[in-house]
Amino acid sequence: MAKALRVGIAGLGVVGQGLLELFAVHGAEIGARCGRSIEITAVSARDRSRTRSVDISRFAWFDDPVDLAKSDGIDVFVELIGGSEGAAKTAVEAALCSGKHVVTANKALLARHGVPLARLAEAKGLALNFEAAVAGGVPVVKTLRESLMGNQISRVFGILNGTTNYILTRMQKEGRSFAEVLRDAQEAGYAEADPTFDIGGFDTAHKLAILTSLAFGVEASFDAIYLEGIETITPADIEAADELGYRIKLLGVAQLTESGIEQRVHPTMTPKHSAVAEVEGVTNCVAIEGDFAGNVMLIGPGAGARPTASSVMSDIIDISRGVVLPPFITPVEFLKPCERAAMRAHEGGYYIRLSVYDRTGAFAAIAARMAEQCISLEAIMQKREGSELPGFAVRGMPNQPIPVMMITHRTTEAAIRLALDAIERDGHVDERPQMIRIERL
Amino acid sequence: MAKALRVGIAGLGVVGQGLLELFAVHGAEIGARCGRSIEITAVSARDRSRTRSVDISRFAWFDDPVDLAKSDGIDVFVELIGGSEGAAKTAVEAALCSGKHVVTANKALLARHGVPLARLAEAKGLALNFEAAVAGGVPVVKTLRESLMGNQISRVFGILNGTTNYILTRMQKEGRSFAEVLRDAQEAGYAEADPTFDIGGFDTAHKLAILTSLAFGVEASFDAIYLEGIETITPADIEAADELGYRIKLLGVAQLTESGIEQRVHPTMTPKHSAVAEVEGVTNCVAIEGDFAGNVMLIGPGAGARPTASSVMSDIIDISRGVVLPPFITPVEFLKPCERAAMRAHEGGYYIRLSVYDRTGAFAAIAARMAEQCISLEAIMQKREGSELPGFAVRGMPNQPIPVMMITHRTTEAAIRLALDAIERDGHVDERPQMIRIERL
Repeated sequence: MAKALRVGIAGLGVVGQGLLELFAVHGAEIGARCGRSIEITAVSARDRSRTRSVDISRFAWFDDPVDLAKSDGIDVFVELIGGSEGAAKTAVEAALCSGKHVVTANKALLARHGVPLARLAEAKGLALNFEAAVAGGVPVVKTLRESLMGNQISRVFGILNGTTNYILTRMQKEGRSFAEVLRDAQEAGYAEADPTFDIGGFDTAHKLAILTSLAFGVEASFDAIYLEGIETITPADIEAADELGYRIKLLGVAQLTESGIEQRVHPTMTPKHSAVAEVEGVTNCVAIEGDFAGNVMLIGPGAGARPTASSVMSDIIDISRGVVLPPFITPVEFLKPCERAAMRAHEGGYYIRLSVYDRTGAFAAIAARMAEQCISLEAIMQKREGSELPGFAVRGMPNQPIPVMMITHRTTEAAIRLALDAIERDGHVDERPQMIRIERL
Repeated sequence: MAKALRVGIAGLGVVGQGLLELFAVHGAEIGARCGRSIEITAVSARDRSRTRSVDISRFAWFDDPVDLAKSDGIDVFVELIGGSEGAAKTAVEAALCSGKHVVTANKALLARHGVPLARLAEAKGLALNFEAAVAGGVPVVKTLRESLMGNQISRVFGILNGTTNYILTRMQKEGRSFAEVLRDAQEAGYAEADPTFDIGGFDTAHKLAILTSLAFGVEASFDAIYLEGIETITPADIEAADELGYRIKLLGVAQLTESGIEQRVHPTMTPKHSAVAEVEGVTNCVAIEGDFAGNVMLIGPGAGARPTASSVMSDIIDISRGVVLPPFITPVEFLKPCERAAMRAHEGGYYIRLSVYDRTGAFAAIAARMAEQCISLEAIMQKREGSELPGFAVRGMPNQPIPVMMITHRTTEAAIRLALDAIERDGHVDERPQMIRIERL
């Protein structure tokens, strides 16, 4: 039997402890099946004496993760510290420089510094594996890196953040407001005290940057992603979506277009009976469209100690089996630079919600603004029982705004924005128009 | 750059031609990304002169696939002949014996002879890869073999046959009979002239045998699988399922139970809003439940030239990258023998449809037979408008049978069978009771 593979773990938070448990429960059997034993030999964390579910006294201890990364006693450095800068980055660089394979779950690090880190790993012939960085327990990195290598990918998209999907699912099922459900989610531990990172779409964008690089052979670039969060979604939007046959999901989408790779994170209307729409709560999903494989979708737990540990372990097992691939599939020297998505060129259908003053001519003016941009409508819906479209009401209440929802046929984002700006300027609406993109599935 | 990997393809039917196309379209780029070029050097098929979408004149030609398998001009033998015996088996054995890696899409071959073939491959240090053998373009073999290696799997199940799912989907959407929809499917090319292999569940069982071996470390054994096809499903069952909140799907299920690995293929009631129930038409899906990863589901095209070619290509790419794993993950010497499922011990809920003569005491007798076996009911439904349960009708039509549907609480298959046998013997029903298992998701 080959020499044991020695693993050092930096960071013993939720995921780190999950990994310790996985080793305790299945470590011996995994070694037997791989033909090479895999052992934790050293760990590093902030506090050695903290109570943990697994005894760490038999592992070498390092106060500084960088010292662990450089240690001669490990072959694989597992980075579970988190954060795109600071200790995580320094330690991963140190590990690669001193000849250690690296496994990480750190999407922020990869989205912001993936290219130089991959260059370093490739130069040294080392693995830089990150299955756990996207969609937790779902094997999407391996699927793109290995299973779908024989395809040109045209689109990859998914629900990549459990917190936002949990909030949107509860808003939909309970008819409650974003703020109320967020408060509940915070109390239940599904959302952070400062929820910006999740609800603003930043976490989704980090993961999307990684998927885009794998799928399209471009450099991972967080800054190239168009970003909108779910803060502005109201119960009225969710209810209108339901009546029009849609669910609202926060999607990350990367798509090959005539003007390049379009990367965007925003609330999206998805047809109600699609697999994506049925993904509820903290579950994640990723859909990949290949020219040969067709449409492949992966669904599973997007976070959590045990699913994430499962993915980290699969990365370690690959190393034990001698599998070392370029981190982003395409060797770094061939990765193309990634430019910021030209969202104005985005084409699709749109949902629009307007709060329109009920006065004569209001709706005619709105319709004229849409027509000016050659936008045609698939559906119009207004929500005050028994009344007509605003401006056509028999018994109008002139200063009482009425919500009007529209679904457009396929058009460009540039056209929609021009139309909505003009509508706002005309003064028939009492708040900024809401606009949600519809994704063709 | 390493020496080119030389590929020989035996069988140029639909999938073989799909693979030729994939090489033509993406071959050069795949080689560049892998750092090793991959080339088709030789082919074998029944008829050399047949018109094909890709010119094969530049490849060496072999009339006999066994000669191709033994040829010095190839490193990888791709078997796309099909069938569990005959040329496919002989050629795969010859390839392995003469030191060639093997890639195959042949589920029947693996389900019946996987163990000796894997033993041969392992003894020679060769790959025997078969991603395309289960669920076409969906990377389920790699997911089990690599991504979920750190898990104890408790259940794997899925929709593994596109033809049956296409038929069930159309029956459900159009309210038509099995025979009618089958005839349509045959005309549209979705079902064979002799459809037994698909609709009887044999194809699903071949694929399930492979999944079971990968998931549970037992020998692949087609004969260990309990098998029922979809021939007996009626529009009444589909309609009742819909009203009770279910869809009927032909599932292959392998499950770890107290009495061993239970492997079964049968029509199954799945909750209507589950991901499995939403898989329609020829699409396949596989769900895997791991103790760390949680529930992971993969969905995608289950067959077809291009998806299957995509999977075959990923197997070839793995070989070009030097990845050679035991075919069934667990080395053959450690695979446990697989015993036939003890279906009588199966536990779950059941849907039962009875055609009951409308006479006094009929339903009381049926209820008594269920009670004798300690079977309790979750729902009862009868389908003649305005009438009561049979035997309780105010204006009875004594010799007119009435359909009665029941959903039971969790019980054993042994109990259900005893109860249904007794009900049939009592003579209150005019045909064999229908029984469909409910799968907890």
